[in-house]
Amino acid sequence: MTSVDQQMEIIRRGADEILIESELREKLASGRPLRVKAGFDPTAPDLHLGHTVLINKLRQLQDLGHEIVFLIGDFTGMIGDPSGKNATRPPLTRDEVARNAATYGDQVFRILDRTRTEVRFNSEWMDRLDAAGLIRLAATHTVARMLERDDFSRRYRGNQSIAIHEFLYPLVQGYDSVALNADLELGGTDQKFNLLMGREVQKHFGQPPQCILTMPLLEGTDGVNKMSKSLGNYVGINEPPGEIFGKLMSISDELMWRYIALLSFASPREIAQKRQAVARGANPRDVKVALARELVARFHGSTAAAAALADFEARFRRDEIPADLPEVSLAARGGGLSILQVLKQAGLCASTSDAQRLLEQGGVRVNGERVSDRSLKLNRGERAVVQVGRRRAAGVTIT
Amino acid sequence: MTSVDQQMEIIRRGADEILIESELREKLASGRPLRVKAGFDPTAPDLHLGHTVLINKLRQLQDLGHEIVFLIGDFTGMIGDPSGKNATRPPLTRDEVARNAATYGDQVFRILDRTRTEVRFNSEWMDRLDAAGLIRLAATHTVARMLERDDFSRRYRGNQSIAIHEFLYPLVQGYDSVALNADLELGGTDQKFNLLMGREVQKHFGQPPQCILTMPLLEGTDGVNKMSKSLGNYVGINEPPGEIFGKLMSISDELMWRYIALLSFASPREIAQKRQAVARGANPRDVKVALARELVARFHGSTAAAAALADFEARFRRDEIPADLPEVSLAARGGGLSILQVLKQAGLCASTSDAQRLLEQGGVRVNGERVSDRSLKLNRGERAVVQVGRRRAAGVTIT
Repeated sequence: MTSVDQQMEIIRRGADEILIESELREKLASGRPLRVKAGFDPTAPDLHLGHTVLINKLRQLQDLGHEIVFLIGDFTGMIGDPSGKNATRPPLTRDEVARNAATYGDQVFRILDRTRTEVRFNSEWMDRLDAAGLIRLAATHTVARMLERDDFSRRYRGNQSIAIHEFLYPLVQGYDSVALNADLELGGTDQKFNLLMGREVQKHFGQPPQCILTMPLLEGTDGVNKMSKSLGNYVGINEPPGEIFGKLMSISDELMWRYIALLSFASPREIAQKRQAVARGANPRDVKVALARELVARFHGSTAAAAALADFEARFRRDEIPADLPEVSLAARGGGLSILQVLKQAGLCASTSDAQRLLEQGGVRVNGERVSDRSLKLNRGERAVVQVGRRRAAGVTIT
Repeated sequence: MTSVDQQMEIIRRGADEILIESELREKLASGRPLRVKAGFDPTAPDLHLGHTVLINKLRQLQDLGHEIVFLIGDFTGMIGDPSGKNATRPPLTRDEVARNAATYGDQVFRILDRTRTEVRFNSEWMDRLDAAGLIRLAATHTVARMLERDDFSRRYRGNQSIAIHEFLYPLVQGYDSVALNADLELGGTDQKFNLLMGREVQKHFGQPPQCILTMPLLEGTDGVNKMSKSLGNYVGINEPPGEIFGKLMSISDELMWRYIALLSFASPREIAQKRQAVARGANPRDVKVALARELVARFHGSTAAAAALADFEARFRRDEIPADLPEVSLAARGGGLSILQVLKQAGLCASTSDAQRLLEQGGVRVNGERVSDRSLKLNRGERAVVQVGRRRAAGVTIT
């Protein structure tokens, strides 16, 4: 058995906050498996790497012998947005919930051990709760306390409306902890308020309060915003291996270390060694390849990962821009120059008709993007890398 | 049939506000009986004159042929105060609710026609509402809107806690209007916000919104505070006839006109005539007697009213202080003078032993209060009316 200290070290890794540490140590010291709750929205079963930060932590807890409860918040999902302000959130049917849950399973059990994970739906107890029960639940908290939640206080101060049922959802989430007898709940840092609510509702119902563990929110591939499907900066775990591999190879070196910290299962020692190697001049690209390979392997298996790597390297070599790229300056006509003239004047093809044929065949790239539109113009002041086929290329500046 | 104008005149009498008048006129013009809702708290079945202001208006509407729905809010009563802050409001059992409802009936049907009044309990529909239904109801309103309610905004600004379920109760009251298909809801001026809530909830459920009519809050016998049992300034309609009569005779002449306006069934013309008579020198006491008699008759019948009047007048004559009261100044000894010395020196009895006997027999009054304690002292500077039996009295000043 792993000691409390060893467990705490594993639990703490990558975590943003653990509340209350001393309580968690006590629970761990009891030796019984803890009931670990994590809630998921039933409307968005397309998981991306951002979601896996939390699921990875669940996996670590599972490996330590604790009971993972994967809770799907279908009760609220089946209500939808009753204020009608959010037309993109129509109520889900029971069938849709079941379908979404299956899709969750397909994705989540690439990380968690299916046989040791309890999947629950909160409609199980929420459907049985009547209005009187919800009123009693609502009586456990004050309006002022609820308005302390970051997004509520911001919206209230900003005169943006908060529908009253929004005050009820954190209480429902807290009541879920009661129904599940949770010892520990995991969530993103943006969930801290709701997780703490669980503690208070449990106390009200005479249960020992759960501990809470928040995980940082993962930045998207842009390195700036939180990873999200709507921002288009995500890596979906259901995406094809080559897609995942390519997206991960595109991130900055700085973001790479952040991803390694939150997504890799490499030991802290291994990671430290990689950092030292790069500091001594090793190519960070190799570290990135290892990360991409690890993650593709996690979601699609190691064979797929090896194939994705081979494919990526072949493509990389093919598209590589020669180091000795000739630079050409061309005079603009009427503010710019057509791509056909650029190709001809830069000496990349013999004539504009030759240029046109190459365009039609898909053999021309501008800044790495395949181009087929003959009306494309490069503007005065612009510089672009123009490639024809695999061998001919030039840096072209329009003056 | 009474015309819309005539009905509006009757409805408007004594009312504080009618919203929206044009809508109400339209409803009346339809010719069908309106469903008139008034909600009552199931925890306080001891009605006083303050409550009857509203019930009188219901009676007028009933006489105009409308359907009166007397709604007992037992659903919330059976929840009690779940925040536990109000220990004096424990949840009611179903038996207690039934008992309280019967007590309501005993009182209310001295004013309303029992056979034409629909008594309902909101548990009828609220017990069937589940948490999901209440959440949908809560979604119809915003936190900001709810915080506009006077007492909520005052408490919020004053950092006094508002439990979240308190935001749900006005919605429940609004939902009652939906369940009852109310055309018009009556309440005190302090209920305006909740009555308007009914309009909004009805609109949400696709019903034509109810009109609302607020009645002023009746001042207590002190003429200052709202009539309330806890302030001791109330006249309970279940009190003995003599008690009601006496309390009404004790109010100021000014308050008398207010009570007449809100409680008497005399016609506006009769009331105007009384005002004129008093202005021309008639004794307001006679107007007060007529009011007291009318109200005692309403709650206890005209025989009881006549008896209460006779009894009051007999007592009044007996206790009356003669207009030609002799004034006596007596020198203090050691800061005051004992009641025995006062009686003797003022010539109200022959000796202190005579005075002591009178005290023991209950024949002595100071400022109208019967006195039996021989250790009572009047202090230097004090003036008191001291009476012995029915005939002897003096104004005594201690110097």
